[in-house]
Amino acid sequence: MKSENLFSNIRRKKSYLCIGLDSAIEKIPEHLRNYKNPVFEFNKQIIDATASYAVAYKPNLAFYECRGIEGWRDLELTAEYIKKNYPEIFLIADAKRGDIGNTSKMYARAFFENMNFDAVTVAPYMGEDSVVPFLNYEGKYIIILALTSNQGASDFQYFASKDNKTLFTEVIDKSKTWGNTDNIMYVVGATKASMLVTIREHIPDHFLLVPGVGAQGGSLEDVTRYGINQKCGLLVNASRSIIFASNGTNFAEKAAKESHILQEQMEKLLKESDLL
Amino acid sequence: MKSENLFSNIRRKKSYLCIGLDSAIEKIPEHLRNYKNPVFEFNKQIIDATASYAVAYKPNLAFYECRGIEGWRDLELTAEYIKKNYPEIFLIADAKRGDIGNTSKMYARAFFENMNFDAVTVAPYMGEDSVVPFLNYEGKYIIILALTSNQGASDFQYFASKDNKTLFTEVIDKSKTWGNTDNIMYVVGATKASMLVTIREHIPDHFLLVPGVGAQGGSLEDVTRYGINQKCGLLVNASRSIIFASNGTNFAEKAAKESHILQEQMEKLLKESDLL
Repeated sequence: MKSENLFSNIRRKKSYLCIGLDSAIEKIPEHLRNYKNPVFEFNKQIIDATASYAVAYKPNLAFYECRGIEGWRDLELTAEYIKKNYPEIFLIADAKRGDIGNTSKMYARAFFENMNFDAVTVAPYMGEDSVVPFLNYEGKYIIILALTSNQGASDFQYFASKDNKTLFTEVIDKSKTWGNTDNIMYVVGATKASMLVTIREHIPDHFLLVPGVGAQGGSLEDVTRYGINQKCGLLVNASRSIIFASNGTNFAEKAAKESHILQEQMEKLLKESDLL
Repeated sequence: MKSENLFSNIRRKKSYLCIGLDSAIEKIPEHLRNYKNPVFEFNKQIIDATASYAVAYKPNLAFYECRGIEGWRDLELTAEYIKKNYPEIFLIADAKRGDIGNTSKMYARAFFENMNFDAVTVAPYMGEDSVVPFLNYEGKYIIILALTSNQGASDFQYFASKDNKTLFTEVIDKSKTWGNTDNIMYVVGATKASMLVTIREHIPDHFLLVPGVGAQGGSLEDVTRYGINQKCGLLVNASRSIIFASNGTNFAEKAAKESHILQEQMEKLLKESDLL
């Protein structure tokens, strides 16, 4: 998907919401647990209820891998279901992969060929050859960790050089030369919203995937104020606050309600930015 | 496994060899491809032929994930086979994971509970809370990427602070306080052998996992000279040069031969270091 098409979808849906499918089996409603593929059933109902409010979904691989083959099947079924029924959705594998070239090539095959994800999150520590294999797919993206939403972000991401450049800006400046705005995006945590000003000086045009709104406490208004650009340039993710809004039989309805609230806030913010 | 026990195994086998199971299905011998679990069959024969020369095996997750459910089954069968038949083997999931706390907890469950790996490689970029969940397992290890063997290592790992401290030494110095020598090891590429002198100044006692000998061109002698400590403190990995030494029906025999050559070199080096 070209970034231009993603922007069209955002305008059409009046939303830049990404819904994180951190679908922990312990947290899904009890009545679903007897299904053959319980997490897929959960995801399916969440997706059907929320797809009109979201432009992207982001399964978090850990919650599938931790259940072995069964989890992997739920993941494959989920990806297939989205691509078949909601082809306009931007589908992100939140995998945070990254390894030497011949290995990253295999990860790219897993996510881009076998499961038809549009994007995969990658960790930058191993440098250029660890992410380049992902860039050889037309219309696909890597989403590079720049400044993350967790507390540990402060351990290394602010590590500063003699001219006071932080590691995360070094990551951005180097990596943006490896591709372009149609194959690279960046992760910037919502809990670091004010840093978006600095980040936009380095990458005015790239899309940013912004986790941390919702359960982690980031502010949608702040993220948008500091991070929005002429093509929106934001995918704001919420996971637990939507998918686990209720653990009763009304879970999908409650998820829809939470998504709708966020979508309406986004619509207002898009209008204020003259993008609608 | 305590690091003390790992050292005992090293002395008993006169080897600090780790064999990387980067078992790409395209590269396994043709006659195995009709098996129900072809990569498991390949791994099993490799393991049976080489286990007397190695103290550790390291399946590389990408080569399993890229085949979806079938690949994941081959991985589970491999881990189970090793633990059942060679309980003394130190089993490493080369996964390079790392995410926010609640997510890393799920990865820890995948590798330490479901599959009984002894260790998992982790990327440090997201900091302390991204790796701490792995440390809550007695006898298990994280192996933190410090200085990797690939070309891209130079992109960020040498990023230097105003007092000329490199990122990889900052990673080592901070992370070593999160645990101890019985739950943290580090990845240091064999292609950077001379840097082991610096690294040993920071972590004299930790075990190091050293990839890059063999296909990537690192030298076993240099790695040992600069990196060995009183408890060996090294696991030197070779993957492709062993497992793909032949692609004929004699592949296991050839793998055994290559492993034996490395084991004999290691025996000599252990003697020269007065550890045998």
